[in-house]
Amino acid sequence: MPPVTIPPRSGTAFRLAAGEVLIVIDPQGMQVADLIAFNADDIGEALSSGRTLDYQETIRLTTGARLWSNRSRVMLEIVEDSIGLHDFLLTPCSRETFAICYDDHDPHPGCFGNLCAALAPYGVAPDSIGNAFNCFMNVPVDGETGRLKVLPPISKAGDHIAFRAAMDLVIGLTACSARDSNGGSFKPIDYRIEQATDAERQAMIMACLAHG
Amino acid sequence: MPPVTIPPRSGTAFRLAAGEVLIVIDPQGMQVADLIAFNADDIGEALSSGRTLDYQETIRLTTGARLWSNRSRVMLEIVEDSIGLHDFLLTPCSRETFAICYDDHDPHPGCFGNLCAALAPYGVAPDSIGNAFNCFMNVPVDGETGRLKVLPPISKAGDHIAFRAAMDLVIGLTACSARDSNGGSFKPIDYRIEQATDAERQAMIMACLAHG
Repeated sequence: MPPVTIPPRSGTAFRLAAGEVLIVIDPQGMQVADLIAFNADDIGEALSSGRTLDYQETIRLTTGARLWSNRSRVMLEIVEDSIGLHDFLLTPCSRETFAICYDDHDPHPGCFGNLCAALAPYGVAPDSIGNAFNCFMNVPVDGETGRLKVLPPISKAGDHIAFRAAMDLVIGLTACSARDSNGGSFKPIDYRIEQATDAERQAMIMACLAHG
Repeated sequence: MPPVTIPPRSGTAFRLAAGEVLIVIDPQGMQVADLIAFNADDIGEALSSGRTLDYQETIRLTTGARLWSNRSRVMLEIVEDSIGLHDFLLTPCSRETFAICYDDHDPHPGCFGNLCAALAPYGVAPDSIGNAFNCFMNVPVDGETGRLKVLPPISKAGDHIAFRAAMDLVIGLTACSARDSNGGSFKPIDYRIEQATDAERQAMIMACLAHG
């Protein structure tokens, strides 16, 4: 399929079948895309930052890393990554983020509000939208003090990260709405999906069952 | 109230009213206690690591830090901390943790299984038990590479951390079941609750509403 554009400060949701590859592209550079995932057959199973960080033993996830669910099953595998710097510590920005962190008086609904709206047709409740895999987001952590910062992404135009689905998924994806995470330049995000062959699809499902 | 002992590799759940202070004590040293919290009046509102790390701008939470919910409201404030080294990145250990990380063939249900059992009477579903505030857990992060390790706690006998509730809560609390997190010495955890005066309780509720 050709790339789909997510306009600035908006979000979308779609199905991604086991074996398919989702490619998230930063078309202009220095933009963030929040990604969350749910088992399409049971949306109680969701992407889990805590399970993933524990099993992968790192907060810097890149090619080869697997992203795990709250039920300790593999949901996605990173199969390509042109940049290697993403965040999996933080939640999507929200109306409250802008009020608390930016003192905005008429705050934007943020990635959280956009994800709530996009995922509602799939039966995902707002309370189920937790920590996201924030593609291209630059959140350095000081190992000594623990302090973290939200800095502009280092991604250039065309940088991308690709995830292969290990099970049938519902994906939520945004073009981020927060000033700090993209240096104040709200930009679009592109994505495209590469179809899987029947053999690839079957292999992913078998691999997922073996981990389950 | 006198301290209550949580036996090794077990967990419990209880109510903590707004204004009350929960003191979690490591009675022998080098043990971890996983803590999770839910709004007692609506268990869809839960402790959120991502919201907390974002608003507090650190992964090392200690005295003065507030722990936030998935709805961006303050649930707990750390009011005393004799050690200053805890984890808020990881999920409670589980049957799957022991199978995946330790290759155990007859795995223990872990803190996750213990929390599921303890919280079931309060209507908390297993899928709602996510990243925990892991008292005394020693998880250094390398700021350069992102690699994390699970090392034995540095807590000595009697070290403690105290949390004041900002709303009426249901708390889940464990004496951790994972070898790596306590250096292979499974030990108990003690806790006690200090009652709040009517004025303290009212002040916490008003402060919570102001943040909401």
